[in-house]
Amino acid sequence: MSGFSFELIHTDRLSGARRGRLTTPHSVIETPVFMPVGTAATVKAVPQDYLADLDPRIILANTYHLYLRPGHELIRRLGGLHRFMAWPQSLLTDSGGFQVFSQRELRRISEEGVHFRSHLDGSAHFLSPETSIRIQQDLGADIIMAFDECTPYPATWQECRDSMELTLRWAERCRAAFDRNNGRQWLFGIVQGGVYPDLRRECVERLLAMDFPGYAIGGLSVGESRRDMYGICELTAAVLPADRPRYLMGVGTPEDLFRAVERGVDMFDCVMPTRNARNGCLFTRHGKLIIKNARYAEDESPLDAECGCRVCRTYSRAYLRHLYQSSEMLAATLNTYHNLYFYLDIMCKIRQSIALDRFCEFRDSFLSSYLASA
Amino acid sequence: MSGFSFELIHTDRLSGARRGRLTTPHSVIETPVFMPVGTAATVKAVPQDYLADLDPRIILANTYHLYLRPGHELIRRLGGLHRFMAWPQSLLTDSGGFQVFSQRELRRISEEGVHFRSHLDGSAHFLSPETSIRIQQDLGADIIMAFDECTPYPATWQECRDSMELTLRWAERCRAAFDRNNGRQWLFGIVQGGVYPDLRRECVERLLAMDFPGYAIGGLSVGESRRDMYGICELTAAVLPADRPRYLMGVGTPEDLFRAVERGVDMFDCVMPTRNARNGCLFTRHGKLIIKNARYAEDESPLDAECGCRVCRTYSRAYLRHLYQSSEMLAATLNTYHNLYFYLDIMCKIRQSIALDRFCEFRDSFLSSYLASA
Repeated sequence: MSGFSFELIHTDRLSGARRGRLTTPHSVIETPVFMPVGTAATVKAVPQDYLADLDPRIILANTYHLYLRPGHELIRRLGGLHRFMAWPQSLLTDSGGFQVFSQRELRRISEEGVHFRSHLDGSAHFLSPETSIRIQQDLGADIIMAFDECTPYPATWQECRDSMELTLRWAERCRAAFDRNNGRQWLFGIVQGGVYPDLRRECVERLLAMDFPGYAIGGLSVGESRRDMYGICELTAAVLPADRPRYLMGVGTPEDLFRAVERGVDMFDCVMPTRNARNGCLFTRHGKLIIKNARYAEDESPLDAECGCRVCRTYSRAYLRHLYQSSEMLAATLNTYHNLYFYLDIMCKIRQSIALDRFCEFRDSFLSSYLASA
Repeated sequence: MSGFSFELIHTDRLSGARRGRLTTPHSVIETPVFMPVGTAATVKAVPQDYLADLDPRIILANTYHLYLRPGHELIRRLGGLHRFMAWPQSLLTDSGGFQVFSQRELRRISEEGVHFRSHLDGSAHFLSPETSIRIQQDLGADIIMAFDECTPYPATWQECRDSMELTLRWAERCRAAFDRNNGRQWLFGIVQGGVYPDLRRECVERLLAMDFPGYAIGGLSVGESRRDMYGICELTAAVLPADRPRYLMGVGTPEDLFRAVERGVDMFDCVMPTRNARNGCLFTRHGKLIIKNARYAEDESPLDAECGCRVCRTYSRAYLRHLYQSSEMLAATLNTYHNLYFYLDIMCKIRQSIALDRFCEFRDSFLSSYLASA
């Protein structure tokens, strides 16, 4: 009835890497997938036709930002986020919780929800499981997220347990507030539990009882070690059902993508390719390149000789450096386009490698080149 | 030998409007033409393929800015400006004089040239007819401009005469410094003389003796009345040779384009469409539109219902307002694209109307709609 489905196509023979296909009413998303972040209904500095050319199939927008400006009701009246931002493919919105919790001095948490102040004008607002779902329904993304508490790091076992219990009570309230029969959206649950394996496993078990169509692994990449992150990712994925998509929120570096894919993660989002681009940090097959470095001043070669993107086909490092040094807006557009192409191209090759049962081979080959000069 | 030519195709029966064709080694430019301004080797916020899609045939870059950053010698070593900025069509550079003279507190004029300080770091520099030509030869634009003194406004007749004499002496020096046999560039002379008809006529006469392949009308749109501007434009054009292109520098509004075309001007440049775009001032058939106005917050219509550009085909006023209000970089890209489309579309229709001897009809029809709501 709904136009939504997730199909597990193949699991790599030598790792946990999965090839899947997530279908929404707006696009067919081959997984594993990296979702570019379009915070305020725009992937910063990238026109929608450039974005379409990158073919991400799904992008993310931030509920917190859109709630504050231009407002979810305005977007609803204008036909929803797809139409508002002229983006015909799939969209995912987060719950707004992460942004609210990140501003520690501006918010106060209660059982009911979170009182907070706008970073724009200091005005007072309240976000709860019910209001987050309502806002996300007004925005109308294909996939929306439960409102959870982002457990701070570091936190004791007891703090994590209390936080997880709150997240679980809020998950129930989200599920109740979400009209699953509207058929226009999928609501994903979010696993919390810090770096404590027993809490993560319990959280999964209790979320499964609520029967979400997909599950996110939240609260990682918040300061814990890579070892903890990969460990929690692995044990959480291991207890999530094979037939539901798994989304590792806010992660990560190119290496992180490989490490999480091999542990069975299907979906990713991260500001790294876009934010780094705006700061002049560019991804190449041979590691990161800081474009402002004087060594590129007269470098006629493309950013990445092995990249086929329109930026690498058209412009030299010397020109990109000039744009960046001159604070020209075009620098952000070109750099972001390239970095997104790089991330999406990695994911495309990961998908191909899984289909051929050669994921580990591709991972090792990529990382040996990428990390050698990083 | 040179790949350069100017052909006068048709003159409107009822006005001085001219249809011409300017050919350079990089493109065939149908005139009258509006040249977008790409100050620092980029039309701010517009990727080159978007620009190519607008098909301007020729764009302008600023010698002053490129001399300071990244430096003309660097650009020469990298194969010249076309290659550096990946722009395959024609380029025109100004002499750098205008920017230097605009910073009154930072420069000192002598017979030899102008000592000035960089607006970037305060470093000391010297620009003269010879250095300007040398820099412009290194940049390698198709059309380069003589180094003239931009006469301040207001100025007495005697001040204008002295300034014009200096400009004429400098024009001779430019001509001597310019290697006209390299065949890669055309050097245009610039008519000065303030708002004094006799000076303008004398300046033309003495420049003609130097036999430039094209002539610019400089020193207008600097504070004088519209009546003076159009008057000087008219009398200057009247004494310029019919078989050479005429370029009115730094002008202007949509109305100015019509007023100058009917007086026989062939070429224009102005920051108005690009700078206004970045400030949220957008051009439509019905006058200017200030996108930040609250009335557009929920306006689903395109910027200009009569415009066929990709921005008007894709995005609503509500979305463009949101981008502008949120200081999103995409606002500058989309707004600039639209404004340039608007300017180039006007010029395209002006050319068609001249070919049909219906320029005045088109001018009146356009301005009655455009000025009614302006």
